Amino acid sequence: MHSADEADSPYDGDRISRRMDEAFSALFGQPCAALWVSSGTAANGLALAALVEPHGAVVCHREAHIETSEAGAPAFYTHGAKLILAEGDGAKLTPESIAAVIDPIEQGVHYIHPQAISLTQASEYGLSYAPDEMSALGAFAKERGLKLHIDGARFANAVAFRHCSPAALSCEAGASTLVFGCVKNGGMGAEALVLFEPALADLVKVRRKRAGHLQSKGRYMAAQLLALVEGDLWLDNARAANAAAQEIAGAAGDRLLHAVEANEIFLKLSPQERAGLRAQGFGFYDWGDDAARIVTAWNSDPAHVGKLARAIGGL
Amino acid sequence: MHSADEADSPYDGDRISRRMDEAFSALFGQPCAALWVSSGTAANGLALAALVEPHGAVVCHREAHIETSEAGAPAFYTHGAKLILAEGDGAKLTPESIAAVIDPIEQGVHYIHPQAISLTQASEYGLSYAPDEMSALGAFAKERGLKLHIDGARFANAVAFRHCSPAALSCEAGASTLVFGCVKNGGMGAEALVLFEPALADLVKVRRKRAGHLQSKGRYMAAQLLALVEGDLWLDNARAANAAAQEIAGAAGDRLLHAVEANEIFLKLSPQERAGLRAQGFGFYDWGDDAARIVTAWNSDPAHVGKLARAIGGL
Amino acid sequence: MHSADEADSPYDGDRISRRMDEAFSALFGQPCAALWVSSGTAANGLALAALVEPHGAVVCHREAHIETSEAGAPAFYTHGAKLILAEGDGAKLTPESIAAVIDPIEQGVHYIHPQAISLTQASEYGLSYAPDEMSALGAFAKERGLKLHIDGARFANAVAFRHCSPAALSCEAGASTLVFGCVKNGGMGAEALVLFEPALADLVKVRRKRAGHLQSKGRYMAAQLLALVEGDLWLDNARAANAAAQEIAGAAGDRLLHAVEANEIFLKLSPQERAGLRAQGFGFYDWGDDAARIVTAWNSDPAHVGKLARAIGGL
Amino acid sequence: MHSADEADSPYDGDRISRRMDEAFSALFGQPCAALWVSSGTAANGLALAALVEPHGAVVCHREAHIETSEAGAPAFYTHGAKLILAEGDGAKLTPESIAAVIDPIEQGVHYIHPQAISLTQASEYGLSYAPDEMSALGAFAKERGLKLHIDGARFANAVAFRHCSPAALSCEAGASTLVFGCVKNGGMGAEALVLFEPALADLVKVRRKRAGHLQSKGRYMAAQLLALVEGDLWLDNARAANAAAQEIAGAAGDRLLHAVEANEIFLKLSPQERAGLRAQGFGFYDWGDDAARIVTAWNSDPAHVGKLARAIGGL
Repeated sequence: MHSADEADSPYDGDRISRRMDEAFSALFGQPCAALWVSSGTAANGLALAALVEPHGAVVCHREAHIETSEAGAPAFYTHGAKLILAEGDGAKLTPESIAAVIDPIEQGVHYIHPQAISLTQASEYGLSYAPDEMSALGAFAKERGLKLHIDGARFANAVAFRHCSPAALSCEAGASTLVFGCVKNGGMGAEALVLFEPALADLVKVRRKRAGHLQSKGRYMAAQLLALVEGDLWLDNARAANAAAQEIAGAAGDRLLHAVEANEIFLKLSPQERAGLRAQGFGFYDWGDDAARIVTAWNSDPAHVGKLARAIGGL
Repeated sequence: MHSADEADSPYDGDRISRRMDEAFSALFGQPCAALWVSSGTAANGLALAALVEPHGAVVCHREAHIETSEAGAPAFYTHGAKLILAEGDGAKLTPESIAAVIDPIEQGVHYIHPQAISLTQASEYGLSYAPDEMSALGAFAKERGLKLHIDGARFANAVAFRHCSPAALSCEAGASTLVFGCVKNGGMGAEALVLFEPALADLVKVRRKRAGHLQSKGRYMAAQLLALVEGDLWLDNARAANAAAQEIAGAAGDRLLHAVEANEIFLKLSPQERAGLRAQGFGFYDWGDDAARIVTAWNSDPAHVGKLARAIGGL
Repeated sequence: MHSADEADSPYDGDRISRRMDEAFSALFGQPCAALWVSSGTAANGLALAALVEPHGAVVCHREAHIETSEAGAPAFYTHGAKLILAEGDGAKLTPESIAAVIDPIEQGVHYIHPQAISLTQASEYGLSYAPDEMSALGAFAKERGLKLHIDGARFANAVAFRHCSPAALSCEAGASTLVFGCVKNGGMGAEALVLFEPALADLVKVRRKRAGHLQSKGRYMAAQLLALVEGDLWLDNARAANAAAQEIAGAAGDRLLHAVEANEIFLKLSPQERAGLRAQGFGFYDWGDDAARIVTAWNSDPAHVGKLARAIGGL
Repeated sequence: MHSADEADSPYDGDRISRRMDEAFSALFGQPCAALWVSSGTAANGLALAALVEPHGAVVCHREAHIETSEAGAPAFYTHGAKLILAEGDGAKLTPESIAAVIDPIEQGVHYIHPQAISLTQASEYGLSYAPDEMSALGAFAKERGLKLHIDGARFANAVAFRHCSPAALSCEAGASTLVFGCVKNGGMGAEALVLFEPALADLVKVRRKRAGHLQSKGRYMAAQLLALVEGDLWLDNARAANAAAQEIAGAAGDRLLHAVEANEIFLKLSPQERAGLRAQGFGFYDWGDDAARIVTAWNSDPAHVGKLARAIGGL
């Protein structure tokens, strides 16, 4: 095995980067192309630009990361395609919620052309789509002539929670593209853009370069990704984070605002309760006035997690 | 007076085009720049591109023409700025409905930056903003650091309905840009993009050229616009259309879905009723399953209008 | 026959616009789609956007109008594609001059991808490409996998000069797109974008709308174009302009800087000579310090042209 | 001192990233903002987008990296601004070569607006601009109202060669932006975008996010940059590479195609000579048919370099 610290061919021609396609094809059980990209925002942008035209549109949830937290990157990458916002509990899409926003759009040159669906797995509220939900969305997408993209910043957590194959939550359901998250799962600065239609790769690679995301020592990114997926580390890390989340969820009782199906816990906590927890050294995000968002990690200290669970249980 | 058929300097250097700024400044009672543009879609796009950056956003009504019927032209012209969709009866915005969609947006590099408001006068449902409504919106915009744009495809109809000055519905309320509609009010193929901040003109003119909207015989467009605004023709035409709309509205009674404040009437009409009216030679648009949209024009034949009013009254 | 002043379906659904495809198909002897567009800059932009991707490039002459005089419109329409500048006498391209600029470009994701050639017929110096020159360029384009676009602001003049069919200078040589000029040949504000690959039309129509070039009373543009091409008016007008140019060229002798093959004459004229001619009421453009550019028109007054020819001959 | 491996605030809010501005301000002796960006292509794109408008243009050398090797990234980042190509020995610009390409451009809405100059320090042929050359270019830029950008992928090598301050080759000469190269000088995947007009930072940061270049664990990039510039490592590394280049240059005699003023050597080498050197284990790039490009590095093995020098000397 080669170390990324050894000099090698630049860009993605090195010995490590060249293992990417094979490693991800093995992971998903079908031929795919896998490109390292330094951020999820860029990977989402490149994926969507491969699926929709500038006059096209992507249906996503109103609270999807690509809508709320990427500073308009999808429009930058797609040269102006629109995000059409659908509703759904827990930031999850359904065929019905998608149909509700695209059915009223007339056809013709005056109107936006919906061309893709983007969902987040696990969702922005830590919910995961089950294999049958994914299949239903994939079938709906196919029926409507829409491509399916998955923002999988927490994809490993969803797979770990669902005890299914990664393919069951992606390519088997008809997804064309997947951002396979690495940074939230232990990486330093790399995500994998997985193309289940490998023919898309040539064009995506040009656009990656054009966006300044073709790093000359890309082997450092490839090394992070392969360390995760050439074995079970990606799943082990996700399981650890999920387990920590379940421990906290178990203590939270009816404070829970959403089911915990990955590594995020949203729970009712008054300002005073939050202040109390913080005074004990616990870190989390405020979520509006009366709630908090807790994120567990691949490396969360079990002792610290246990202490937090007990503190929440004791409120 | 010169005819547009006389050879003259090309582009907007001719004797007719050069009267545009003066004519519109006189109309609005303040210095402004006025550019001919061949369509409302282009004029809106150029205006919004002058007001927001590519990472910015424009708040508009969910049913605004720029959102529903311009094929994403605002994103094309602004290089990707987002439209943020607000609610409101009759496709009208209020400070509250705008605040409801921008207040939740956090500040910082991860988020979209709302930079402008775009409203349609008269609205997509034929409602008009009164001077005090415009003032309230303008004050709100100023307070929030937002620029104000008016899509005035039916601006003349709104002015005619409100019996006020054109300035009261635009620059006096703080609008930076206005598309002063001409085509729906008798023109062949020209709208005026009025810039109440004349300093914007230099850049907008470059962008007009870059978008292929600087016609070499622009004098033909200028001639259409000046024919309207160097006298009262713009108002006479609008009044004629409005009067026809009022006559029909008067006959429609409680079939009316919206107040009639310009030249559009939306009214409940069953499929059978619509078929019956069409059989008598009347033209209008279906509006969903149980309603119709009737548009009157500057040149609607009074006899025909009267006949339609009687036909509706007699249903 | 219908007048454009009659109310009709909006946009391009009216009875006049719907004759466009047929009229141009007849003119070129093969099925084509023909769209009205209000300016040559827009028509060129739309054509190029149909032929190249944002990371692609168009080879054109260093003095091509799209490079020198359209304020970057091609980059706006194509979302950033590059113009690669080739050399050539009289602003004409040859296979050799194109090869000279594209052969050094390496292949791969780091480099620009040349995808089209754009030539101007007649050229910016009033030279025209002969049928065999067009064939050679078309064959070269095909061999290199490049699409061929023709900026035909003066296409009619070139056809008139070459005494050939319009097809011989366009589709028979393999051109995919042609801007068939109308404004310089008598029109008010319309050019025809002719697509010799009619399958391109759907997408180009969306982009035309998105660019604000789908006028709601497009019938006024269609009427201008059909008036030219449903008979021989386009050719008659061009012949008149060409004849005037030849008369002046005949008087210019060795002052001529370029052969006169359309309706433009470039000739050496000192500042004093130009001043003298202007004092006699003749209009033309300065061309550097010691030359002038004279453009004749479809409606140039023969008496005036004769007088100018005599004045030049007498210098 | 904190390690990047410690959890910290995400994006650029961590304790390491927050030292960037200060570290680079100290290096340049004036307040500046410094942003980490993962590639030179992205950093150049962001810089140029801060300096020119979509209808603007950047003058660069015909062989500048931004023109030849970035797949059109500048056009992507600037939304279509043009690169105007100037000539100059050794890929270096001069006020005269810049004037030669911008002076013929007319002013007005039909034309491209040159708004910036971009030069590469050291140049693509390994030549460096001396302080007085930089001053002359800066003065020229100021006089013409152009902003000055420096692509400094090998900036450290130029500073090391010129024995001057980094400021003398950048801000003191009036540069607005500088890409301070790190990857070619020992880094893994980070470059510093230095803004000598710190007021540009707010907007550039938004665009960095929008382009997907705001990494969530940016501290790993900051750590690379600070390791170089909080001491003399950046200069030590560059000196080592330069010294290796000088050793090879000294042996190359009149084979040299360009002066060696950084860490690149271009020298005449026949195919046979190249094959012979490669057979001895030396690596370099072919440069056309009869030359080679040798690049030395911060970590080139002196023994290997010496062996290469002797091999070249002995040819």
